[in-house]
Amino acid sequence: MSAAAGVPEPGADVLARAALTRVLEPGDEHGGRWLRELGAVGLMRTLTGPGEECAALTGVGAERLAGYRRRAALAEPRRDLADAAAAGCRFICPGSAQWPTQLDDLGDARPVGLWLRGGPDLRTWALRSVAVVGARACTPYGAHMAQTLAAGLTERGWVVVSGAAYGIDGAAHRGALASGGATAAVLACGVDVGYPRGHAGLLGRIARQGLVLGELPPGSHPTPSRFVLRNRVIAALTRGTVVVEAAHRSGSLVTARRAQQLGRLTMGVPGPATSGLSAGVHELLRGGAELVTDAAEVIELVGDIGELAPARRGPVLARDLLDPDAARVLEALPAGRPAGLDEISLAAGTGTDEVIGRLYELHSLGFVERQGDGWRLAPRTPGAGAQSRAARRGGR
Amino acid sequence: MSAAAGVPEPGADVLARAALTRVLEPGDEHGGRWLRELGAVGLMRTLTGPGEECAALTGVGAERLAGYRRRAALAEPRRDLADAAAAGCRFICPGSAQWPTQLDDLGDARPVGLWLRGGPDLRTWALRSVAVVGARACTPYGAHMAQTLAAGLTERGWVVVSGAAYGIDGAAHRGALASGGATAAVLACGVDVGYPRGHAGLLGRIARQGLVLGELPPGSHPTPSRFVLRNRVIAALTRGTVVVEAAHRSGSLVTARRAQQLGRLTMGVPGPATSGLSAGVHELLRGGAELVTDAAEVIELVGDIGELAPARRGPVLARDLLDPDAARVLEALPAGRPAGLDEISLAAGTGTDEVIGRLYELHSLGFVERQGDGWRLAPRTPGAGAQSRAARRGGR
Repeated sequence: MSAAAGVPEPGADVLARAALTRVLEPGDEHGGRWLRELGAVGLMRTLTGPGEECAALTGVGAERLAGYRRRAALAEPRRDLADAAAAGCRFICPGSAQWPTQLDDLGDARPVGLWLRGGPDLRTWALRSVAVVGARACTPYGAHMAQTLAAGLTERGWVVVSGAAYGIDGAAHRGALASGGATAAVLACGVDVGYPRGHAGLLGRIARQGLVLGELPPGSHPTPSRFVLRNRVIAALTRGTVVVEAAHRSGSLVTARRAQQLGRLTMGVPGPATSGLSAGVHELLRGGAELVTDAAEVIELVGDIGELAPARRGPVLARDLLDPDAARVLEALPAGRPAGLDEISLAAGTGTDEVIGRLYELHSLGFVERQGDGWRLAPRTPGAGAQSRAARRGGR
Repeated sequence: MSAAAGVPEPGADVLARAALTRVLEPGDEHGGRWLRELGAVGLMRTLTGPGEECAALTGVGAERLAGYRRRAALAEPRRDLADAAAAGCRFICPGSAQWPTQLDDLGDARPVGLWLRGGPDLRTWALRSVAVVGARACTPYGAHMAQTLAAGLTERGWVVVSGAAYGIDGAAHRGALASGGATAAVLACGVDVGYPRGHAGLLGRIARQGLVLGELPPGSHPTPSRFVLRNRVIAALTRGTVVVEAAHRSGSLVTARRAQQLGRLTMGVPGPATSGLSAGVHELLRGGAELVTDAAEVIELVGDIGELAPARRGPVLARDLLDPDAARVLEALPAGRPAGLDEISLAAGTGTDEVIGRLYELHSLGFVERQGDGWRLAPRTPGAGAQSRAARRGGR
């Protein structure tokens, strides 16, 4: 886990996967199957090799196959990785220590890899994360609820994941940021593109204090199908999805239903029965989603990780196996009392944004707890007994 | 059923039960047990006889027993029945043709009898009834929802039952009345008392177009415990209870939970998560109640009578066994097209209020259907095939 925290050395598999993010559209299940059968290197070799080898790539017609081959021939993964690094971004893929293994639940629709802006460890963050999503054209009530929920969740040490859209998504990210909390934005475009334009400032803030991520390589623009397929990543990455406001047949309901199919918790915030922007949420609640009205109720539901985070989802680390930056933040916490961000940041000799990221990682691993505005060491830091304690507390 | 539609001849059992409504408080389970063990006549004889016989009345102390005996000695059931008849009221009790057998689900807490103002047959009305209840100090949103729901329910041929309180209850009754529909008010006082005072006019209107009923004999005043115990009658009488607005720990939640315990459907109308008057409803919805936002959704839930109206709940009548007044209204409906109230009323030679009552009875029995603002004969009126058809349509 420690080595992968920086920019990874581009091994053959990483290079091939970076290239494949230019070849396969998000959620392409044919591509996912080929990848599983041939491996990333094998698939790129087949796509860029002599045409007759492509007989192995079953399930699509000749014209579509030609499209894959054209894209593969144009891919320049070394350049993409270098550009990304220059823009402060990085690329992670299955097998790397930071890969959130929850995404494996997507089967052949699992992302080929993820491009990230921001420092925190996505794998540990995702362990204690909740998606807060909803309508773009939300009401003031909806925006208020999204912001309040997100603030409440981050105050209790949870990471708020959303899609950075106008309306509910933006309110959720802002609520998390404003309470000094952790938030991650999953985009339907390149992480350097920053869509919607009006949220460029917000995305910059999220990248500094949290994470901006997506499947699409640098420079990619969003399309309607990319929005829909982005939602499956939000659903799979998190423990549960809260829909704040949604009209009938809205994209947020797609995320929520996807979450339900993946065995994640699906939650909805009720609103007036007279509001068209609550109609979709009420439909969801009638279909079995859980009704929530505040952050405590959300955590009561997602906090029971027994069902949602099987043991395979991540290792439990002994203290001496922690990433050095995380270990430094952990050592900066005083014994026996909570400390504020500034104090921890000063003691650790690093910026508060970096400290926030590390604290949420440490929280996921069961080392620290949030208390009021500050953070404190968990009653007994894991070590010999780490396995059971951290598992119980959400760190497995 | 036909003979019991008027004022019953006071037989010994009816007289004893009328007397017992002065002796036993609503929901008194000791009294209910004695009644089951000794019969009404036997219980009254025991209470008014020599003290040593009261050894049979187990479960209460000597002081409380003396209280029962004092009340029994003062009861004047013949006078109560005569006063009631003079005020246009009547008394029904278990065993009478109009007794709603759903109330038997209350076991020993079943009402001893019911005092009624208004003409309709309670037994058939109750078969297709839904309770709409909620907060006294409701918001304009809550009042709007109660009124709209009640109007929608009555437009689809359902009877709206509530408690005649200020706020949601009143809005529900008004919504039903305003759409020319059927409504019943269950009071926690004598049906001649009319509480709350400010609803005297509304109660008069309900008694003309529908039913005002309660367990307490003429002249009785409401008390806090009587309100609570009244709620069990609303819950037991109806197929389901819809709570429109309710704060935490409100009386409407008691009705709803009682309904749940009795195997009735419990429903709630969502509202803003920020509204304290929706907090109780949301609590209920989190506890397993069904979320509803309009009358169609309510009927979708309560309309499946398979589970809720076991066969014992009432007889299916052949057309020639109908009450003569109901038969006259049925004959007044034209063949092959719907007719309005005025037309039916003219053809039947009776007032529209009487016609409304009879139409809802006929609806419960499967003879007629509501269509738009009017009523029409059901596609095939029950007769030889009445058993299965009426059962399927809600008339058993």
